[in-house]
Amino acid sequence: MLKDHVKAEIPEKEELKVKLKAEREKLAASLMSIKDAKLPVMVICEGFGGAGVGSTLGKVVNCIDPRFFKLKSFGGKASEDEKRYPFLYRYMLTIPEAGKFTFYDGFWMHEITDALLDGSLSEKLYEKRVSSIQSAERALHDNGYIILKFFFRIGKKEQKKRFEKLLDNKDTKWRVDDGDLRENKEYEDHERVYDRYLNDTDSAIAPWYIVDSEDERFSEWQLLSVINRGIDTALKNKALAAPVRQNRFKLVPMQKLSEVSFEGKELTDEEYEEELKDLQKRLRALHYRLYRKKIPVVIAYEGWDAAGKGGNIKRITKALDPRGYEVHPVASPEPHEKARFFLWRFWNRLPKTGHIAIFDRTWYGRVMVERLEGFCSENDWQRAYNEMNEFEKELSDWGAVVIKFWVDIDKDTQLARFTDRQNTPEKQWKITDEDWRNREKWDLYEAAVDEMLEKTSTEFAPWYILESVDKKYARIKALRIVIKRLEEACGKD
Amino acid sequence: MLKDHVKAEIPEKEELKVKLKAEREKLAASLMSIKDAKLPVMVICEGFGGAGVGSTLGKVVNCIDPRFFKLKSFGGKASEDEKRYPFLYRYMLTIPEAGKFTFYDGFWMHEITDALLDGSLSEKLYEKRVSSIQSAERALHDNGYIILKFFFRIGKKEQKKRFEKLLDNKDTKWRVDDGDLRENKEYEDHERVYDRYLNDTDSAIAPWYIVDSEDERFSEWQLLSVINRGIDTALKNKALAAPVRQNRFKLVPMQKLSEVSFEGKELTDEEYEEELKDLQKRLRALHYRLYRKKIPVVIAYEGWDAAGKGGNIKRITKALDPRGYEVHPVASPEPHEKARFFLWRFWNRLPKTGHIAIFDRTWYGRVMVERLEGFCSENDWQRAYNEMNEFEKELSDWGAVVIKFWVDIDKDTQLARFTDRQNTPEKQWKITDEDWRNREKWDLYEAAVDEMLEKTSTEFAPWYILESVDKKYARIKALRIVIKRLEEACGKD
Repeated sequence: MLKDHVKAEIPEKEELKVKLKAEREKLAASLMSIKDAKLPVMVICEGFGGAGVGSTLGKVVNCIDPRFFKLKSFGGKASEDEKRYPFLYRYMLTIPEAGKFTFYDGFWMHEITDALLDGSLSEKLYEKRVSSIQSAERALHDNGYIILKFFFRIGKKEQKKRFEKLLDNKDTKWRVDDGDLRENKEYEDHERVYDRYLNDTDSAIAPWYIVDSEDERFSEWQLLSVINRGIDTALKNKALAAPVRQNRFKLVPMQKLSEVSFEGKELTDEEYEEELKDLQKRLRALHYRLYRKKIPVVIAYEGWDAAGKGGNIKRITKALDPRGYEVHPVASPEPHEKARFFLWRFWNRLPKTGHIAIFDRTWYGRVMVERLEGFCSENDWQRAYNEMNEFEKELSDWGAVVIKFWVDIDKDTQLARFTDRQNTPEKQWKITDEDWRNREKWDLYEAAVDEMLEKTSTEFAPWYILESVDKKYARIKALRIVIKRLEEACGKD
Repeated sequence: MLKDHVKAEIPEKEELKVKLKAEREKLAASLMSIKDAKLPVMVICEGFGGAGVGSTLGKVVNCIDPRFFKLKSFGGKASEDEKRYPFLYRYMLTIPEAGKFTFYDGFWMHEITDALLDGSLSEKLYEKRVSSIQSAERALHDNGYIILKFFFRIGKKEQKKRFEKLLDNKDTKWRVDDGDLRENKEYEDHERVYDRYLNDTDSAIAPWYIVDSEDERFSEWQLLSVINRGIDTALKNKALAAPVRQNRFKLVPMQKLSEVSFEGKELTDEEYEEELKDLQKRLRALHYRLYRKKIPVVIAYEGWDAAGKGGNIKRITKALDPRGYEVHPVASPEPHEKARFFLWRFWNRLPKTGHIAIFDRTWYGRVMVERLEGFCSENDWQRAYNEMNEFEKELSDWGAVVIKFWVDIDKDTQLARFTDRQNTPEKQWKITDEDWRNREKWDLYEAAVDEMLEKTSTEFAPWYILESVDKKYARIKALRIVIKRLEEACGKD
């Protein structure tokens, strides 16, 4: 893309001034439409050092009321703390909310190209990074984000001249670092790697624009006009649905809920107490081991109301060091969460390496309550199976153990437990009108759960059904599964 | 406190079991009252290494539904990134929301005592840290937080025994680090420093409890019973008001708004353009300098509706590198912000060292809109003057330049601008019914603003009035003040 790029003609000074003014006004005027359409806009700028990304962005954001944008800057290096999360993590946290912009002065490109250039990124991992980005961009796009990507290009000589000017002033010389100087010295190598990255991440939904950056006002005009056109198109397309992609992961066959039998799936108090003690002891030791080996763990609980999720989770956490786990009870999203991509609030709650995150209800709300209550469109929940599989693939590729439990009971058991909650003063807070309303939709939920289990039980993140008419049985089964999966991941020593 | 501590008698095993059960049940049963009373609870645990803080907390949180608590762990060291914020910053971000607990396995104590022990903290800075903590605890307490503080104590021999046991197992030996071994070797030195810290931070509103930690179940019981008693007391005291403290900072005398004259405070277009260009050039250079010198800057804008805050801010930001500043438009708090101490959302938006944060409306909403609309109690806003002064003192002591602008116009000018906004289609979004309603309360607001200017214009964070009937005049004045303050802070080179 860089090498065969056809340089644009810089308009005459006066003409450029007029054009620039028009684009600035157009952007300022479109803010209310963007807000009304709840459009989130990502403007991602990458480029050669000294190409003027910062100063151009400075001009662009100056046309925009601060209520409507944030600007984020990413260096090529993750901090020690950020390295304990998946590659996409620190980037995903910064996505804009509906109706607003995030401008990026550097996004995820340089973490990859820098590492490729200094030899610390293998070819295989490079491919993986590119595919992570493609899948994240697709998910964001399909969920209504516009992604506008710019690469600021300057020639070797011009870059050298600009660096020299910055180095000449003690207040600006810190802006040129060793990496910049190396980039200039080994300009062709860098150009080749950038070119490769741009080609690999160019796509119909998020194409790259090469910005000829020799003239600052011209850069600004290129940026503004592409942003304005992009917004126009996105506003027109607002109601379009995105294709539902074919599944590309190997799936583990699952039972239908109607086939689940509770027969014989019970334990006496003695069996339970004895096993519980033994398993918790083993889990405690494993927790220290996975901490030492820095393996992250995600345990996701879904299940019928009153199936016993909370008590089940408690039997797991009782064995854990409280510094090494967190339980995330998931209720309906807060306004600032609802205003973003539905997986954002889960990205936000990922464990560090060596830690365990337990979700009491999860992202699967998308294909259950959100589907059945109409909180998202049909296209949204149909796409979500793949979006969630890809999300979990990222976790798994990062090294996480992903365990998903469906805590299952039958309809009569639920009724008995609801009634008990209703009649026991200290349990009454656990039962609401909503629980009774959901119960009326049992059959619809059952069909949705069957579809979910079928479509999202991947080999890297399988579902396990916990038969929980006898809660003791379900707890022991959960502990055994967690221990087995952790032993596989931690090894013997 | 440690040395003259009277060791408690450990009850007999059976008796302890019964007592423990009762306290666990009491805590579990109080969750709904805590939620209904919107009580935020901080349980801060510190102690000697190996004293069992983690495992005791593990047992305590296991009585509590995960919806009601978070657990945070702080090591003694701030990360490189955290070091670019004030001392209190990383701690303040973790305070619980209304109706919930945060349990701390280590809070701000060890960052101070470790540094005191290794000689990296001067006596003067130690005093400063202690006073920061006292003031933060008081502000939190006065705003409805319960703060329960525990120090887990074990003897030198017992500690050694416990470390040896941990070191003996490869899955647990990472839990004992060099700092722990040093603590055991130099037990008496550590005990002396801890004792000093405990004495210095013991207070009526947040006293220390020494937990005798030789027996794990006894530790748990001590923790639980103090928490339960603390909650009882806090629930009874819920409606109590806290004393409004006397001002202890030197104040800069301020004009009353009625004394502000707009006479002659205007500029021709030519004067304006020329000055603007010159000042922005100087500010641009200063911005790089303060980045290099890692000086943080906080600029706070308050003012009448339609006074011209937005345009004024834009003239500042136009001179800044977009990577080095952020504008925070402040609207009414989101639910998760409203559920916390009112300054939390501002702690959350502080700049890093070397960066500029500009607030378009600020924490002073507490003594203007919240006061006049009854969004907080009279006692709340009366205390807020001091709470905000202390907040700004923290910023100033950290090294921040704090600049506060009141953008002033007269009532006729506001009417003219409102009418213009109403009649100009592209400005209509800027005017709402609320603006008109606020205008009706002009006199009440004027009195509140006068009181605010009088009580919060400290020497370290003074207010500046920007006469903005002529917006050009106000912009130039703001730029001059910012430049003057930055030059004072950055020096000549």
